[in-house]
Amino acid sequence: MNETHIHWPHKDLLDVEQLSRRDVAILMEQAANFQEINQRPVKKVPVLRGKSVVLFFAEPSTRTKTSFDIAGKRMSADTFALGKGDSSLTKGESLKDTSLTLQAMAPDVIVIRHSSSGAAQFMAERLHCGVINAGDGWHAHPTQALLDCFSLRQVWGEKFTGKTLLIVGDIAHSRVARSNIFLLSHLGVRLRVCAPRTLLPAAVNSWPVEVFNDLAQAARDADAVMCLRLQLERQQAGLLPDLSEYARRFCLEPKHMELAKPDAKILHPGPINRGLDLSSTLADCPQSLILDQVAAGVAIRMAILFLMATRNDGGADV
Amino acid sequence: MNETHIHWPHKDLLDVEQLSRRDVAILMEQAANFQEINQRPVKKVPVLRGKSVVLFFAEPSTRTKTSFDIAGKRMSADTFALGKGDSSLTKGESLKDTSLTLQAMAPDVIVIRHSSSGAAQFMAERLHCGVINAGDGWHAHPTQALLDCFSLRQVWGEKFTGKTLLIVGDIAHSRVARSNIFLLSHLGVRLRVCAPRTLLPAAVNSWPVEVFNDLAQAARDADAVMCLRLQLERQQAGLLPDLSEYARRFCLEPKHMELAKPDAKILHPGPINRGLDLSSTLADCPQSLILDQVAAGVAIRMAILFLMATRNDGGADV
Amino acid sequence: MNETHIHWPHKDLLDVEQLSRRDVAILMEQAANFQEINQRPVKKVPVLRGKSVVLFFAEPSTRTKTSFDIAGKRMSADTFALGKGDSSLTKGESLKDTSLTLQAMAPDVIVIRHSSSGAAQFMAERLHCGVINAGDGWHAHPTQALLDCFSLRQVWGEKFTGKTLLIVGDIAHSRVARSNIFLLSHLGVRLRVCAPRTLLPAAVNSWPVEVFNDLAQAARDADAVMCLRLQLERQQAGLLPDLSEYARRFCLEPKHMELAKPDAKILHPGPINRGLDLSSTLADCPQSLILDQVAAGVAIRMAILFLMATRNDGGADV
Repeated sequence: MNETHIHWPHKDLLDVEQLSRRDVAILMEQAANFQEINQRPVKKVPVLRGKSVVLFFAEPSTRTKTSFDIAGKRMSADTFALGKGDSSLTKGESLKDTSLTLQAMAPDVIVIRHSSSGAAQFMAERLHCGVINAGDGWHAHPTQALLDCFSLRQVWGEKFTGKTLLIVGDIAHSRVARSNIFLLSHLGVRLRVCAPRTLLPAAVNSWPVEVFNDLAQAARDADAVMCLRLQLERQQAGLLPDLSEYARRFCLEPKHMELAKPDAKILHPGPINRGLDLSSTLADCPQSLILDQVAAGVAIRMAILFLMATRNDGGADV
Repeated sequence: MNETHIHWPHKDLLDVEQLSRRDVAILMEQAANFQEINQRPVKKVPVLRGKSVVLFFAEPSTRTKTSFDIAGKRMSADTFALGKGDSSLTKGESLKDTSLTLQAMAPDVIVIRHSSSGAAQFMAERLHCGVINAGDGWHAHPTQALLDCFSLRQVWGEKFTGKTLLIVGDIAHSRVARSNIFLLSHLGVRLRVCAPRTLLPAAVNSWPVEVFNDLAQAARDADAVMCLRLQLERQQAGLLPDLSEYARRFCLEPKHMELAKPDAKILHPGPINRGLDLSSTLADCPQSLILDQVAAGVAIRMAILFLMATRNDGGADV
Repeated sequence: MNETHIHWPHKDLLDVEQLSRRDVAILMEQAANFQEINQRPVKKVPVLRGKSVVLFFAEPSTRTKTSFDIAGKRMSADTFALGKGDSSLTKGESLKDTSLTLQAMAPDVIVIRHSSSGAAQFMAERLHCGVINAGDGWHAHPTQALLDCFSLRQVWGEKFTGKTLLIVGDIAHSRVARSNIFLLSHLGVRLRVCAPRTLLPAAVNSWPVEVFNDLAQAARDADAVMCLRLQLERQQAGLLPDLSEYARRFCLEPKHMELAKPDAKILHPGPINRGLDLSSTLADCPQSLILDQVAAGVAIRMAILFLMATRNDGGADV
């Protein structure tokens, strides 16, 4: 990228569908710059000095919240976390009133995680400050898909076209799967999913994916495998007869990876259920990108916060 | 104000009764300066760099705590929040010991919210650092009254004398009402209150207010109406027979505002019970100052933190 | 100390046993410098700018967490607190995975409090970033022992040899006692312990302490007495027949201090059970170092964070 000045076109980040290929390229480039900063002894740049970032996590998520918090502070932003327990803000108060109240305190960006699909969009439509969707119900989790993309880019370079990614697990209830499938298929990746029928979305046949029920078949010649976290409450909901039966059929094992491409990579959004989502051996093996994903998460969130929080200043000088 | 150097005379802010007219004028002037800073792209000034502000909220209040937190950080102070769940500080420990422990960590200001009336004063008497009462029981909430005053000043200018403010709702249990009545009557505003008898304080006849039971009569020719939040537990306590009956008689509606002065303003400390404290239409109408109050809250808290945290440095250069 | 450049030899601080006399001297010297900074109007130095400190408190402890938080921010570090309620990081996730995830976000130091003895060491062995043990089970609490040492040094100067310290209370379950006994005996202090037999560790005879059951005898000629906090759940566990009986025999009273050296000092790690651990009169008397300990805690934690977070930068210039 040769620009010295970027005008980021989006007030909000609600889902990856809004991003053009060029937008994704800008984000990846910016994240690469920030990744380098995160490896310095002094991990701090003044680019968001005087900017306020609200982290409104109505659904608990320490992992994502901490990632955004670190991202903001490393760029010298002030961050303000509101959690689920912060009931006095939200008790008896609509999401609309909470949103307007937060905006009146003049933040530059509000990051929202919420159990209701569409909550981020609802907020974005009512506020003039930027809104980042950090996960809404089963709908979308765009920064997760972007960090997964960034992690794959570190091994694949620009060559996404023709690569094959398999996603294993609870596709039906996964905003991670949904956002990744859209983003990566858009970049030319061939997508496969593998899950019990009860954990596949009803409309899966209209998705740009190939559907498998057998993990060995699904893994064959894959360039990467992304295991999802199985929410243990799915069993209580009657969607799974038995966790050990699930593990026997859908836990990723070395025998499956032997069928994949040599040096195929393994991803997982965390936290891992070892021995259920994937085997402990694979979680720790050299092909695992799982910790790279965590590091990528900080870099991607720095990139998106930077681009969004500076767009009203006439764009970011980079 | 022509001063270039202010010596703020108060170690603590416990209630508005301690403030002279000149103190209030200084606070309003300072808050106006900070309000302007909050509208800049870079919302940060170094005036409290190296100052430590403890936010000790023994009663939950995200709204007020976040407002103080933003206020502190925008002036480059370090803030430290302790909440109700932080039991290891306070478990089996008296408020005295908690206070002395906090002070030993050398904060410049401690902001305290507590369910006991008098908690802030108890703390202030024992500590040499500054103490701000962010709400103690039913007693006082001085920064709320000051931010309400600031919001009214933005529309009324300096002309408070002869204006009429009506406060509607649970006057008996409201520290917001108590602090506002004292502050605004002191500035020349004529106060009215309107509530069911069970939600009026026993001593209301000795207060500088005119008491109404009928909302239409109370609203006539008012320059502003402040609705209070009804705590839903009041009904359980037997003080209200029926919420819908309460709403029918005491929920502020457009028909009441038609009796008030043209362009009369509407205030509410939040969070709003729409359709109970006031109608949803009014909450969102152009006469509503409710979101201005939130913005004013940050500015007022910047002003008071600034004046208190710098008074031992020989006063604030402004 | 004449050094202008220190290379701190320890990646982690797990217990006081790893510290040489020289290490302790360096820490005390550094803490004295930081103590001075904490008394300035501007309590802020840029020495840890761009450093990230994670406060991972799996066991609640506002007191210690706030002390580390203040310490970090006063040196311009960014701090990130994860608490017990932050279950989404740790739910179904092993301490190993949590540790690796945190490290992937590139912190410089992780401070951990955990209910399992050995948790800090487990983490330290797996991570290349620095780990500070802020209390693990009944095992160790090195920064508490160091701050106690610093508090005593402020009254005793360098002359620890031959001084007598009595520790009263629940020795068996106290990581504070364990770390203090090791550190102070190493510095030449004669240690005494006094407790009911049920609250003495099984191996107490192999410890470098003199054991007493009678508080009056134990206090005789002591230079300082450290009272421990009695966890009230000990009674439920059947270790104490009766709290008032315990108080009658083991609550430190003025009559005991009259037997100690003139001007003997009183310490307590807090929070105090007044009338159970020690009498209220003694807690507030001039001989009490209890609030000095709190202030020392901030200074000691600044010293250790500073030395650990800068050791990979080629050492600290001081």
